[in-house]
Amino acid sequence: MTVHSKQQVKLTDSFWCRYQSLVREKVIPYQWQALNDQIEGAAPSHAIKNFRIAAGEEEGEFHGFVFQDSDVAKWIEAVAYSLETERDLELERTCDEVIDLIGRAQQPDGYLNTYYTVKEPGKRWTNLRDNHELYVGGHFIEAAVAYYEVTGKKKLLNIMCQFVDYVDTIFGDGEDQIRGYDGHQEIELALIKLYRVTEEVRYLKLAQFFIDIRGEQPHFFNLEAEKRGDKPHRWFHDSYSYSQSHLPVREQEVASGHAVRAVYMFTAMADLANELDDESLKKTCQRLWNNVTQKQMYLTAGIGSAEFGEAFSFDYDLPNDLSYTETCASIGLVFWAQKMLALEANGVYGDVIERAIYNGTISGIQLDGTKFFYVNPLEVWPKQAYHRHDYKHVKAERQPWFGCACCPPNIARLIASIGSYVYSVRDHIGFVHLYIASATAFTLGDTRVEVAQTSNFPWSGDIQFTVNPERSVEGTLAFRIPGWARSFSLMVNGEEAHTQVSKGYAYVTRTWNQGDEIHLDIPMEIERMVAHPNAKANAGKIALQRGPVVYCLEQVDNGENLASLEINGDSLIEERFDEELLNGVMVLSGKAKRTEVTSDVGQALYMRSEDVITNETTFTAIPYYAWANRGEGEMTVWVRSNM
Amino acid sequence: MTVHSKQQVKLTDSFWCRYQSLVREKVIPYQWQALNDQIEGAAPSHAIKNFRIAAGEEEGEFHGFVFQDSDVAKWIEAVAYSLETERDLELERTCDEVIDLIGRAQQPDGYLNTYYTVKEPGKRWTNLRDNHELYVGGHFIEAAVAYYEVTGKKKLLNIMCQFVDYVDTIFGDGEDQIRGYDGHQEIELALIKLYRVTEEVRYLKLAQFFIDIRGEQPHFFNLEAEKRGDKPHRWFHDSYSYSQSHLPVREQEVASGHAVRAVYMFTAMADLANELDDESLKKTCQRLWNNVTQKQMYLTAGIGSAEFGEAFSFDYDLPNDLSYTETCASIGLVFWAQKMLALEANGVYGDVIERAIYNGTISGIQLDGTKFFYVNPLEVWPKQAYHRHDYKHVKAERQPWFGCACCPPNIARLIASIGSYVYSVRDHIGFVHLYIASATAFTLGDTRVEVAQTSNFPWSGDIQFTVNPERSVEGTLAFRIPGWARSFSLMVNGEEAHTQVSKGYAYVTRTWNQGDEIHLDIPMEIERMVAHPNAKANAGKIALQRGPVVYCLEQVDNGENLASLEINGDSLIEERFDEELLNGVMVLSGKAKRTEVTSDVGQALYMRSEDVITNETTFTAIPYYAWANRGEGEMTVWVRSNM
Repeated sequence: MTVHSKQQVKLTDSFWCRYQSLVREKVIPYQWQALNDQIEGAAPSHAIKNFRIAAGEEEGEFHGFVFQDSDVAKWIEAVAYSLETERDLELERTCDEVIDLIGRAQQPDGYLNTYYTVKEPGKRWTNLRDNHELYVGGHFIEAAVAYYEVTGKKKLLNIMCQFVDYVDTIFGDGEDQIRGYDGHQEIELALIKLYRVTEEVRYLKLAQFFIDIRGEQPHFFNLEAEKRGDKPHRWFHDSYSYSQSHLPVREQEVASGHAVRAVYMFTAMADLANELDDESLKKTCQRLWNNVTQKQMYLTAGIGSAEFGEAFSFDYDLPNDLSYTETCASIGLVFWAQKMLALEANGVYGDVIERAIYNGTISGIQLDGTKFFYVNPLEVWPKQAYHRHDYKHVKAERQPWFGCACCPPNIARLIASIGSYVYSVRDHIGFVHLYIASATAFTLGDTRVEVAQTSNFPWSGDIQFTVNPERSVEGTLAFRIPGWARSFSLMVNGEEAHTQVSKGYAYVTRTWNQGDEIHLDIPMEIERMVAHPNAKANAGKIALQRGPVVYCLEQVDNGENLASLEINGDSLIEERFDEELLNGVMVLSGKAKRTEVTSDVGQALYMRSEDVITNETTFTAIPYYAWANRGEGEMTVWVRSNM
Repeated sequence: MTVHSKQQVKLTDSFWCRYQSLVREKVIPYQWQALNDQIEGAAPSHAIKNFRIAAGEEEGEFHGFVFQDSDVAKWIEAVAYSLETERDLELERTCDEVIDLIGRAQQPDGYLNTYYTVKEPGKRWTNLRDNHELYVGGHFIEAAVAYYEVTGKKKLLNIMCQFVDYVDTIFGDGEDQIRGYDGHQEIELALIKLYRVTEEVRYLKLAQFFIDIRGEQPHFFNLEAEKRGDKPHRWFHDSYSYSQSHLPVREQEVASGHAVRAVYMFTAMADLANELDDESLKKTCQRLWNNVTQKQMYLTAGIGSAEFGEAFSFDYDLPNDLSYTETCASIGLVFWAQKMLALEANGVYGDVIERAIYNGTISGIQLDGTKFFYVNPLEVWPKQAYHRHDYKHVKAERQPWFGCACCPPNIARLIASIGSYVYSVRDHIGFVHLYIASATAFTLGDTRVEVAQTSNFPWSGDIQFTVNPERSVEGTLAFRIPGWARSFSLMVNGEEAHTQVSKGYAYVTRTWNQGDEIHLDIPMEIERMVAHPNAKANAGKIALQRGPVVYCLEQVDNGENLASLEINGDSLIEERFDEELLNGVMVLSGKAKRTEVTSDVGQALYMRSEDVITNETTFTAIPYYAWANRGEGEMTVWVRSNM
């Protein structure tokens, strides 16, 4: 078993520090107001009120989704990560008060869930399939672990240990226990985190139990439904693949069902495989990873190509406009990739993390931090979103808040914790996975080695490191060479370093001395990307990518009807950094052709091919993550090209 | 007012006679069995049984849709047209017996509807919005008119006159009358037909009443719902455009809502505009015609691009795979076009009729006459139809029968009556609208002129006519020059004729003598068609059309992944008539390129454009109407092309 030890990381990166300030200054306060029903015009969340009612401190009814509590948990988790980057005593006091409230809402036996406490007392654990009890618990566990790790305060951790100790009596193989699991996976990955900070093996075993029995026959959700007096076949969408319980997890060949549930489960599976050195689980994770990233993932690291069930559909079915590609799903993919990376030092995992964090995750948040996308399509024709029922999930502009508000707090916690993805130590090797300017300290053997990274990522692949071991030390540092790199050079103190490249990492083994300077240069070229021909939606089209950043064309830059544009296959594409635009972005531009009708065709809808002409024009592309920040209009990532 | 007199037409056309035999020998008997619940494995129709129960001759409950009766009506109508082409005494006796049954199910006051008679007696006319009472009546009127015209038998006509006389007392401006209309337009067009055979002006006025008050405020469906105690806003899809009652018809700028309802209404409007010389209605019809055919119609003459509401969506929104393009909607478009043609001798109407009858209507029926498409997409990836909820309306294979069985009898009646679209006389000019081999007789002035047409349409534009006036007569014949024609030549008795071409018709005025031979040659070239650039779904793509026939590529001829094919923009496309294939079709073939990945990319989903290559290959295209007759597979009408 090799586990990456938790790295303390101090971010200095201009790209990510801006996002983290946004989370601190805009998102967390905004979400706090939302949880307290103080946002005018938005549907009230009722989340804090539910806790007050559950604590017996206020009269009223429960309101919101069955998983409404989890919004509070995700907020605490985001606060914790944010406090790590910048202490804020007032915020911490607010958070402590919420934690006190949670404590008062907890039941004497450790149970915690305001829906069942307030609305359906006595009905606990009767509908695991639909009602998210363990899911909500999982989010509070994650919050508790994060808050403890940052502040050292144990109150929430104790609350959640008490909760889990209680859950552990309810679930299990015993005669009076429930041999079951939650419809929405989440507690599994959280229990492993809890095990890590508490070292309580029962928590790990409970996670293992939930994973191992999932998908067993006779099916738990059938048995549970019968006990309730429901017809099992009335189950949501009539398919257990929705919750990845159609088969035991080790028998699942492809990713299917609700994408967020899937990647949360895969995260737990990879983490368990690592903790338990479980070869069959490891193989399953790798098979599912390959399926997702080679058959079911968008160029932006979006996953979930179907709105119905917010789900994976089938291999190579990647419609750009109908996709669901939920912000949360890409975030979950990042969680999973990190655990896969812990299983195996392979650059493909870092590639996906990078693809996700610079594209399909942060596309979910407005540049000013006040609005959010739940759905992140790669092509939008606003009229379709407004007029077609089959596109009703697609929004052409970010929304202030959602009834089901999972994505905003989720993107907040990802951004606030982005530092945790940059480095790791494994087998005494210090790994650099991401090029985010920051400082950390590796412990190589018994020597502490401070590393400071500076870069202008994602706009430049020119990265500097200063290495400061407490004393000169022989050791290995490994640098991820991204999948998009055509070449790289790595100099130490001005001289080309001897590197060994293996599975996407360049390993440099030498004696490291105080003040060593590493210069890693990974030229970022503008790439015309194509999709595998089986991905029909992208046939005849290219997408522009520069470094990890995927580009898109917007109507505001390119006029109406982006489909009428064709990018010239061989002409030069130019880049220009525009500091004023969209908080500073590299802009791409080049030559294109626009199809137009000749004037003598009149109003004809169909004509002979000789009746259309193409006129020379230019195109402008901006980073995908920054789309829809300048009003509403068409957008497309994939553009026709005469390759 | 100019009305086309009803032409007696005797078909000799090999293409259409085959279809008519199919209707006679397969469809009509099959549908009769279906109406009588004798098809094993198919959901019982219960339609005939409902009539027996309503007639008090059998015990039982009503089953089926509220409009189940209309299946019987459409069957009778198809039988009538079929008897016109070939008398069949046994079939006629069966039909007479059904008509007797209908008579016995009619209520003493003239009311006829088994749903309300059996299931909700006393609730007549309480939910016009949803329950199709007048719609069903309209179909029986159409059946009655057709059966009377063919057989001279008046029984059903009398039943329906009695029905309409009763309806005329219920609906109107009077104090005790309902100032309302049906949610599904149909009776309007039927009443005009009934007026023509009976010359009863009240019937025409009733049609006019229904059309004129539609969309008035306060809205009839609101008032009606309130009377029922329903909340008006609970109305289907929350929009009155679904039934084209969101605005008075003359204020409707674009076609919207349920496509079949729309074109049935437009048919009545055009017919009324003609009968009443109503200029504002005429202008409305022309505006809506232009909108449909220039902005909302597929190349196959399919209409209705959205499944939700089986509806028009918005201008240029023409997705090939998600479309609804119901068989019935294209059939309704033919009805409408014929009435537009009666308003104005303009080739565009005949062009649409031709486009519909050789493409998007007959695509609805299997070549062997036993299975049917309700939805006629222009692109199918069977996996999407099976795995994506948003494509659940799409079928990759025709189905034996439908719960809502509107399309099979509708296509039967269109095919059986196809002769009625070929000729007309207007202002003493004999018009030839379609090139379907047949014989007819024009009355020009007071001279009967027999015309015999022979052709091998739709495979050849080489058409012969023999003209036999009872005596030599000075007169004009007009021949439609199709929109797809690049040129034509018209010879009379071996000499180039003097023609005047106006609005898509070539007029030949001369003295016609016994045995005059006309040779009209309209060369059919293989056309690479493109769509207006605003129709985004077809950007960068061509469709092949030869004469009126639109082509498609099928997987069975071209292998998997049709999206990976690109047709060479300039290379020759060859044609070959294959007598053995699909009952004999012209097959097109030519050069194409297929995109493939280079071997060193492995399993990558995304790659640089240089990592894909194109290999030379060939493609084979077959007529669209004949797709899905050789098992299941991909199909596409629009194919990428380097134009």
